[in-house]
Amino acid sequence: MKISSRGAVAPFIAMEVMAEARARDATGAQVIHMEVGQPATPAPRRAIEAAERALRADPLGYTEATGLPALREAISARYRVRHGVEVAPERIVVTPGASGAFLLAFSGLFEAGARVAVADPGYPAYRNILRALDLKVARMEAGPETRFQPDPQMVANAGRLGPVAGVLAASPANPTGSMLDRDALTDLVEECQRVGAVFVSDEIYHGIEYGPPAPSALEISNDLIVVNSFSKYFSMTGWRVGWMVVPPEHAQAFERLAQNLFICPPHVSQVAALAALDAEEELQANLAVYAANRALLMEEMPKAGLDRIAPCDGAFYLWADLSALTDDSEAFCARMLAEAGVAAAPGVDFDPVRGAGWARFSFAGSTADMREGARRLKSWLKG
Amino acid sequence: MKISSRGAVAPFIAMEVMAEARARDATGAQVIHMEVGQPATPAPRRAIEAAERALRADPLGYTEATGLPALREAISARYRVRHGVEVAPERIVVTPGASGAFLLAFSGLFEAGARVAVADPGYPAYRNILRALDLKVARMEAGPETRFQPDPQMVANAGRLGPVAGVLAASPANPTGSMLDRDALTDLVEECQRVGAVFVSDEIYHGIEYGPPAPSALEISNDLIVVNSFSKYFSMTGWRVGWMVVPPEHAQAFERLAQNLFICPPHVSQVAALAALDAEEELQANLAVYAANRALLMEEMPKAGLDRIAPCDGAFYLWADLSALTDDSEAFCARMLAEAGVAAAPGVDFDPVRGAGWARFSFAGSTADMREGARRLKSWLKG
Repeated sequence: MKISSRGAVAPFIAMEVMAEARARDATGAQVIHMEVGQPATPAPRRAIEAAERALRADPLGYTEATGLPALREAISARYRVRHGVEVAPERIVVTPGASGAFLLAFSGLFEAGARVAVADPGYPAYRNILRALDLKVARMEAGPETRFQPDPQMVANAGRLGPVAGVLAASPANPTGSMLDRDALTDLVEECQRVGAVFVSDEIYHGIEYGPPAPSALEISNDLIVVNSFSKYFSMTGWRVGWMVVPPEHAQAFERLAQNLFICPPHVSQVAALAALDAEEELQANLAVYAANRALLMEEMPKAGLDRIAPCDGAFYLWADLSALTDDSEAFCARMLAEAGVAAAPGVDFDPVRGAGWARFSFAGSTADMREGARRLKSWLKG
Repeated sequence: MKISSRGAVAPFIAMEVMAEARARDATGAQVIHMEVGQPATPAPRRAIEAAERALRADPLGYTEATGLPALREAISARYRVRHGVEVAPERIVVTPGASGAFLLAFSGLFEAGARVAVADPGYPAYRNILRALDLKVARMEAGPETRFQPDPQMVANAGRLGPVAGVLAASPANPTGSMLDRDALTDLVEECQRVGAVFVSDEIYHGIEYGPPAPSALEISNDLIVVNSFSKYFSMTGWRVGWMVVPPEHAQAFERLAQNLFICPPHVSQVAALAALDAEEELQANLAVYAANRALLMEEMPKAGLDRIAPCDGAFYLWADLSALTDDSEAFCARMLAEAGVAAAPGVDFDPVRGAGWARFSFAGSTADMREGARRLKSWLKG
């Protein structure tokens, strides 16, 4: 038995950092965790209470493959309120996390061997899911001149080596937090339509924004795919509920495919997710913590010499240029953990080509932890 | 935007029957549901209580990609007790349902374009997941002479048209309930090893047996893949927790792939699953109901003229030969629902070639329902 070439995945260095950080915690070291990409908070109280009620009252068997009708309707209503767009519930496919949505979108839309353009830096699982589904990754190298986001020129460049079947963009992005404004998003969608590529808009960090709210690609066109999740803004990572919005004419095809690939998303998690949509007060309080953490770090990190940071418009990450300090961020992060007790994610996971000069600092923890992290960094780097 | 050829899936006729049956229920018709493939019972009480405790005490963030360590250890212990085999916890990958395990196994083991042999009749999602992952399905036509199970000759035959990368078998099987005994399973595993095909053993109905317990393929070899789930015996369909056992040398590769494809299985469901492993008393009571239902139907169905039924060694289905009554089981099931108020799954979902002469009757409901279903069938078919 051999692992297939498409199934052989490079390790995440961040996971190794996390394991090392936890091992240090276990010895009483009190590491400041800036390596993890999830909120420290649990699901909103309303969501937990709804789950408790369902546990007692419902056998929690299979749901519809596309999710509970009430949840699809509530997500539809959210698009109306937040984005002023009508998205029929039939177009919403509830999935096992955004991960499930990517599996569904990529297998449902792209023939084996097709090329999909993805921005670097970016979420490493994009590349690995694409490869596992026998798709080719066309790299779009993005830098500060485009807020680390893809633009029409990069899409056109990717097309020079062969047709591009799809273009994937995230706004706010992981690891940078940078956003595409409405004009930039419109340009990108239009370029995709011009070259016949499906635009896949990863909106998983929507709701976690520090300036203007992120526009949804659905404000621009219905002929694209939107992926979102309850993991980040709704603080429900381990519950594994995401969703996908598809064009109306493909709703039935995706329903059938979802039925085969997943049967359905986890039932109790869907019940909790439905209630989380009504927990704005608690979620806005979480957001206020992220905003305070961000403000604190934007003030303090430069004092540690970390002053080249991607524009953090949203999400809860700072993507920091370490190239003045190291050309090996993996070794740098290992030293930072060992000597300063601060864990961060080395950049190679997110950008295999240029990442050795970068690292991602997550500020999804408590403000006290972020303050202590900044203090340790200053002390370590500035003595 | 177009749906890819690999993502375009034929509808499940059974889902249309279910929708029609529910529509009739909504008008007060009181349909007897023998079309659904899930227990009518909820998760065991212990599982629900464990979930309740976790909701209050745990933030329920991401777990390890391969599942909670305690759950992997408990599954490992179950193999020791039930099958007398040592399966290191490191070899166990907890997945989002058995569906997740198939996605993981097929993409991790088979190069795009490879051929995987699957028995007909069989679970329809096998074929569709394989196709979505750009794999070719080699059909093994099984009949009563092999208890509707694949055998070494069928594997050899499948190899005549090209190399076979994998062979998939389920015991107890869906839709037949028939099992491979230890000798038959050994022969199949050995033939796979002879021809260099990976044997994938779907053991999702393990624990639901009416004679000798089903042997696990792990009793025969470690160089194969086993898939199992908490959905059936543990009565936790909507919770979406399954698992896969992999050879020790591939544990790390599957861990990395799982991380990318799923991040992790649903956290609260894993907590519930762990507790369900200690709920033998309640689960054995469920099993006693299935056994009573099976005995009742084996007695009563022949009185309705349905006397050609696959050997139901386990699971909770009767695969009935309707060829003396119809050559269009889809139309037959539609009439049976409309005229007798009994819903069953037409055979074409499970065997695209011969299924028009067959139907699957699920007996996972209450014994009272099964008795009423048999009464209606007798009255409808025998007047």
